[in-house]
Amino acid sequence: MSPAEKDRKPAESESEYAHKLPSQAEDFSGWYTTLVRSAQLADYAPVKGCMVIRPYGYALWENMQRLLDARIKATGHQNAYFPLLIPESFLKQEAEHVEGFAPQVAWVTQGGEDALEERLAIRPTSEAIICHFYARWIKSYRDLPVLINQWANVMRWEKVTRLFLRTTEFLWQEGHTAHRTAEEAMEETLRMLEVYRAFLEEDLGVPVHKGQKSESEKFAGAERTYSVEALMRDGKGLQAGTSHYLGQHFAKVFDITYQDEQGQRQHVEQTSWGVSTRLVGALIMTHGDDAGLRLPPRVAPIQVIVVPIYRKPEERAAVTAFIERVTAALTAAGVRWKVDADDTQSPGFKFNEWERRGVPVRFEVGPRDVQGEQVFAARRDRREKQPLPLGELGPRTLALLEDVQRGLFEQAVAYRDAATGDAETLDEMAAALDTRRGFVRARWCGEAACEALVKERTAATLRCLPLADGPDPGPCAVCGRPAPRRALFAKAY
Amino acid sequence: MSPAEKDRKPAESESEYAHKLPSQAEDFSGWYTTLVRSAQLADYAPVKGCMVIRPYGYALWENMQRLLDARIKATGHQNAYFPLLIPESFLKQEAEHVEGFAPQVAWVTQGGEDALEERLAIRPTSEAIICHFYARWIKSYRDLPVLINQWANVMRWEKVTRLFLRTTEFLWQEGHTAHRTAEEAMEETLRMLEVYRAFLEEDLGVPVHKGQKSESEKFAGAERTYSVEALMRDGKGLQAGTSHYLGQHFAKVFDITYQDEQGQRQHVEQTSWGVSTRLVGALIMTHGDDAGLRLPPRVAPIQVIVVPIYRKPEERAAVTAFIERVTAALTAAGVRWKVDADDTQSPGFKFNEWERRGVPVRFEVGPRDVQGEQVFAARRDRREKQPLPLGELGPRTLALLEDVQRGLFEQAVAYRDAATGDAETLDEMAAALDTRRGFVRARWCGEAACEALVKERTAATLRCLPLADGPDPGPCAVCGRPAPRRALFAKAY
Repeated sequence: MSPAEKDRKPAESESEYAHKLPSQAEDFSGWYTTLVRSAQLADYAPVKGCMVIRPYGYALWENMQRLLDARIKATGHQNAYFPLLIPESFLKQEAEHVEGFAPQVAWVTQGGEDALEERLAIRPTSEAIICHFYARWIKSYRDLPVLINQWANVMRWEKVTRLFLRTTEFLWQEGHTAHRTAEEAMEETLRMLEVYRAFLEEDLGVPVHKGQKSESEKFAGAERTYSVEALMRDGKGLQAGTSHYLGQHFAKVFDITYQDEQGQRQHVEQTSWGVSTRLVGALIMTHGDDAGLRLPPRVAPIQVIVVPIYRKPEERAAVTAFIERVTAALTAAGVRWKVDADDTQSPGFKFNEWERRGVPVRFEVGPRDVQGEQVFAARRDRREKQPLPLGELGPRTLALLEDVQRGLFEQAVAYRDAATGDAETLDEMAAALDTRRGFVRARWCGEAACEALVKERTAATLRCLPLADGPDPGPCAVCGRPAPRRALFAKAY
Repeated sequence: MSPAEKDRKPAESESEYAHKLPSQAEDFSGWYTTLVRSAQLADYAPVKGCMVIRPYGYALWENMQRLLDARIKATGHQNAYFPLLIPESFLKQEAEHVEGFAPQVAWVTQGGEDALEERLAIRPTSEAIICHFYARWIKSYRDLPVLINQWANVMRWEKVTRLFLRTTEFLWQEGHTAHRTAEEAMEETLRMLEVYRAFLEEDLGVPVHKGQKSESEKFAGAERTYSVEALMRDGKGLQAGTSHYLGQHFAKVFDITYQDEQGQRQHVEQTSWGVSTRLVGALIMTHGDDAGLRLPPRVAPIQVIVVPIYRKPEERAAVTAFIERVTAALTAAGVRWKVDADDTQSPGFKFNEWERRGVPVRFEVGPRDVQGEQVFAARRDRREKQPLPLGELGPRTLALLEDVQRGLFEQAVAYRDAATGDAETLDEMAAALDTRRGFVRARWCGEAACEALVKERTAATLRCLPLADGPDPGPCAVCGRPAPRRALFAKAY
């Protein structure tokens, strides 16, 4: 083995970060925060609970945004932009809504030199301001449906925060639609839930359960809330997106009406739905391992990192020239690539660095590869390497990336399924949630009191009533009274 | 002429808006605001000076954003996202900066239930918060240059506002870069100014002068400010974008240093540059005419509006079937199109409606066109119609759109040049600015007092010292002392 070839083995000690990253088993929370900061995805801001999203993290978010935006537009929605500031009186109109959000609002009380007459909320969500406009825009059944989405920053004054997962300011999209009938609005609610499932599973490789939230977990002001629920690698659940059927709650207080075909005034039926930068956290905690991030190819800012390997100047020239042919082939195939040509770092250091930053595929190019007209391709989802001939590089790379995408999803499904089990009693639930964590499927009678008892005893919450599950009657795991079906419980972020 | 054919002539009275839109000559300001609202680009929000950008306006902004973002990335920049809230103490660090922006800041003083210990500014611009991070991220010459851009909302508490042109909250991009040398930073400053020129002229069809601002008009905290200056159709100037060479002003107060190759600590040299949703206003006031908007094809949300024309049911069936072939050809060519199939409105009404909304090309499809396998294409930049055969529809439409794009730019250049003239004395300046408005090129000695006198006498400001102009020595138009060159003056938005 030549000295250059030796560098193809991971050289853990060379990475300046590797020793700082705790293993998931010893400190999952430390692993997460260290990784987010050292991979330069994001960092804390001077204002408590706010974050800066650094270029690598933002490129990831941009890729996610582009793919989800296309799905949102493909289902007939248009984007718009509503004001950041909402007068307090607007927020107060829907009683449940203000009760849910007022404790988390950041208030603007001064504009320039003047104290304001009315406090203005930085939007924690935009129902109140959007309904104000819908009341003006919607006149007739011909104006319906209104299908609008917004990409925006929102702010919720959180007490306990964590990068991406729960920050005071975050980025999101929020859809707000208005319809003629309850049926249409319910159809929309479930359509967008399915858009989220497809986006999460197909683009992010994050398997989710679609389901309905219980009364106690639903959105403040909604008639019904649905969510997609994922499982992180520490066994904790994470709500990855929500879709709300709002009914006529907001339409009635904001007076959003239309004239129907018979000339009668009717209140509209509404929905709202959103996902946020929290999904970046979901992605990290679904796929990451002890070596760092593992990014799904469809959203990875860099899909292929090319590492040149050489010792002598003439080798360097040959390798560099060959890499130009490699990257030309990657560009032609539409692959996002980068060459790490930094002369001050060894290949081994670079391998660790880009593994930590989650790049799905690494190309190693040394003198032997130049001779053989090939690259040596290492995949990040599992420790496998294979030579790829230059002549077939475009299609073979695309196939490899698809394979990594699939591989990450399958590993996540396998983990999730292994960490899911049934429990018949509260004791069994507590035991399961204590030892192996994960999802517990238990029968629930529908009473809030039973749900509260589970939380008190196990710290787990009712994540959702999965839509895919049929009826499964039997005794409620808590009170023993008849329950129609099982609910999904987990400790959650 | 058949009744259907008759509809091909504009039927002004049919439009519900046409009579509401004042002509530009009688009331330019009323024309602008009525048009922005009735074309559903934007509307006022309940908070004074804020606006809602409606789907048609936002789709326009998205197209602008996508094209400019590509230009920003092609010059090596990456996007990131910095926090919305900036502690007051950060803003105060650079003296000129805080003096310039503090009177316009919206302050957050309360978070949830708690009064805050320190006021937080909603960013009026992000230098202060970004410099805080750059001081932490930049250590060595190897970390430079830092080339970061952000797309974000910002807020400036303005007293007099106008949709898009000057709003309390607006959307923009702000680039912030750090370099080793002043030369490099100046190169970047001018590179981005050129990016703005190319974007404005090539994508938006808005001709601009690149130039340097005088001391009194430069950015608060900058060493030098450059801008691109456009001329609106009422003869008023509009600053369409700025690029600032910040020197080491911010680096010194925020302590942004790097270790150079010799191991010495040096302060970085910085730039910042931005354009905003104000450009939507510039677009409207550069191209719009008495019939409404005229949108450049590269950014128009709808490039081709297809209007079916028929009277009898069998005609309708034939026209509808033919239009499917038409739109298939447009889709294949990558054209953004829409069919206005509304049965309750006449073709004449639709012609006016879509002219008002600025769609660059209209296809009229009647029974005769079906027989002839063609569409009748009307262009929005000038009143011309031509038949386009279905067999050549893709390439002919693309060529027509390119032609409209060019036509709008050429008309704007012609207007601008006709509205530009030299003046040798303050009296001549005043006369020119009073009668025909537009740009006045006059010699200026460089003294702020002379600049102030021009403003006092004519209400015009010094827009810039155009970079394209060479030296042109002679007496200052105001004081008569020697002046090295001419400056560009105009009344401005």
